[in-house]
Amino acid sequence: MKSRYLRPCIESMEGYVPGAQPSGRPYVKLNANENPYPPSPRVLDALREAASDGLRLYPDSMATPLRARIAEYHGLSPDRVLVGNGSDDLLTMILRSVVGEGGVIVAPRPTYPLYEVLVRIQDGVMRWVDFPPDFSLPQGLVQPEARVTFIANPNSPSGTWIEPAAIGEVAGRVAGVLVVDEAYVDFADGDCLELLDRHPNVIVLRSFSKSFSLCGVRIGYGLASAEIIRNLAKVKDSYNVNRFAIVAGIAALDDVECMRANAAAIRAERARLTAALRRMGFFVYPSQANFVAAVCTQPTATEIAAALEQDGILVRTFRDPRLRDWLRISAGTPEQNERVLAGIERSLGSKQP
Amino acid sequence: MKSRYLRPCIESMEGYVPGAQPSGRPYVKLNANENPYPPSPRVLDALREAASDGLRLYPDSMATPLRARIAEYHGLSPDRVLVGNGSDDLLTMILRSVVGEGGVIVAPRPTYPLYEVLVRIQDGVMRWVDFPPDFSLPQGLVQPEARVTFIANPNSPSGTWIEPAAIGEVAGRVAGVLVVDEAYVDFADGDCLELLDRHPNVIVLRSFSKSFSLCGVRIGYGLASAEIIRNLAKVKDSYNVNRFAIVAGIAALDDVECMRANAAAIRAERARLTAALRRMGFFVYPSQANFVAAVCTQPTATEIAAALEQDGILVRTFRDPRLRDWLRISAGTPEQNERVLAGIERSLGSKQP
Repeated sequence: MKSRYLRPCIESMEGYVPGAQPSGRPYVKLNANENPYPPSPRVLDALREAASDGLRLYPDSMATPLRARIAEYHGLSPDRVLVGNGSDDLLTMILRSVVGEGGVIVAPRPTYPLYEVLVRIQDGVMRWVDFPPDFSLPQGLVQPEARVTFIANPNSPSGTWIEPAAIGEVAGRVAGVLVVDEAYVDFADGDCLELLDRHPNVIVLRSFSKSFSLCGVRIGYGLASAEIIRNLAKVKDSYNVNRFAIVAGIAALDDVECMRANAAAIRAERARLTAALRRMGFFVYPSQANFVAAVCTQPTATEIAAALEQDGILVRTFRDPRLRDWLRISAGTPEQNERVLAGIERSLGSKQP
Repeated sequence: MKSRYLRPCIESMEGYVPGAQPSGRPYVKLNANENPYPPSPRVLDALREAASDGLRLYPDSMATPLRARIAEYHGLSPDRVLVGNGSDDLLTMILRSVVGEGGVIVAPRPTYPLYEVLVRIQDGVMRWVDFPPDFSLPQGLVQPEARVTFIANPNSPSGTWIEPAAIGEVAGRVAGVLVVDEAYVDFADGDCLELLDRHPNVIVLRSFSKSFSLCGVRIGYGLASAEIIRNLAKVKDSYNVNRFAIVAGIAALDDVECMRANAAAIRAERARLTAALRRMGFFVYPSQANFVAAVCTQPTATEIAAALEQDGILVRTFRDPRLRDWLRISAGTPEQNERVLAGIERSLGSKQP
């Protein structure tokens, strides 16, 4: 598009580069924090049933039946729930409703890079505050001009966890909205839901992608005051969630035991991965998510990832120079984790002459 | 949300009011331009097959297989296609990438009201230009400051059609982007695809909702220059289209004959509805879409719609005072159309003492 058409803030953005889709050989895919276990059979049954003549009709604009089911799950009233096309859709709604040109957004770094992309699309100002080495909340996170402050908890790519009480303290001190992004919270020891009733500026985001094994369906939601939800809905796409997402979300919550069993298995594997990598000499962040982040210098993270890819295993490295030494590995099945650990061990061995 | 959180342009917007969902009795639903016929059986088969363990994985970020299939359908290269979560998603991408605060958008009126909602979310300026009574292109549509000019063709709620040559002339004269919204084009006698190669500022939007009977799945796309598509993709949600939408779109294009047969039936019914309503004395706009718009004064559009609702039939009326006398009726099956015509005839009779 010629620059005379384009907003300068968009023109200066890098084009989105979609992640390489593995094709051909069957990779062990531990690079995108997907769940290694399939969704509940009840979800698949509900989805097959939804493949019907009813698809000729629009979905419910507010995903009302799913909204009600989520409200029940959390013991909140439905007007405090907003369903999105993945929790990324909620992030977009928050930015579009709160951040105008020059609006300031604050987040600790490193974290989910989409926050900055969305700020740039709004022509806002992203103010990063570096995490300290222990990934506790950084000094300087509370900034009076911030219209939105983001905290991903558990954080990605570190997997680290901030105690809800510390986040509550931030909520009480920031003037703007505090978004607690809980995409990985079903793998953690707690959550920030109790902040919702004490702090009218808090928005908690959840996702069905990771713990419910439904990345491919795109279902997320936000929890907040009825007032915030009403205003976020103003910028919602009229029919943002399709008929499959609505029935899948309901069926998933009707079989939450399936999710919990999978999450428990993943937590056990996360502990095993962490211990094994530490035995190999890596620094591994304590993770409350469905992945672990290891710091690799010799061989480098890129070298290990390349060797693993030769073995048919995909793990995550980062272009951000601050994360040059990081290797992020999603916790897979026990068999998959055996393979990735053996592959890493081989990489180490080949460096020792 | 307290105003200190909210952008003023959002605070001043009206909250979105979702359309009433009929429940309880089985309504004949002719109010939302949905297709009365089900989607192709091949689409339903593909959707059932997609309800599988693969849902634990993210969808392809660019909907690559569907993008390729759409490109093939239109004889374009895939880099000239962008798939969205309904064509509304494309409208959002266009506004977010092109329109900053104060940016001017022009469209003839009355038309699809979402254009103005999206302009307001960008804090832009909507400049409406009234259609003349015959719904030809209005004088004054070409404005030098316009960053985007919208033309829905066929237009809604009128159903009227502008010849592609006239739209091409506008494309050559506007300085900004010209969006030709072809959501209803499969029911029309032509389309504007040939403008794409002659005018680098044209974006054509298409939808699977109406003609392919897939409102509930949310699939739309944009066609434009590779340069425009590359820039629109920058503001696309990373995974905007779910796995069901991707397979449904491909299967729908693999059975385009099904869509064409349904569209032909709907066009025949549209002609019959138009003739019957004119015989009853209504002014009916010549429609190239899957609906007809009749002007009703005595009884009023609201009175007729209320009487029809009593009969279990939903048709569309409008809150916009310019459309106070308009009744928009989606073309249903022959049986549904018999019912709506009989109901309207009864409304007329009850007014004649």
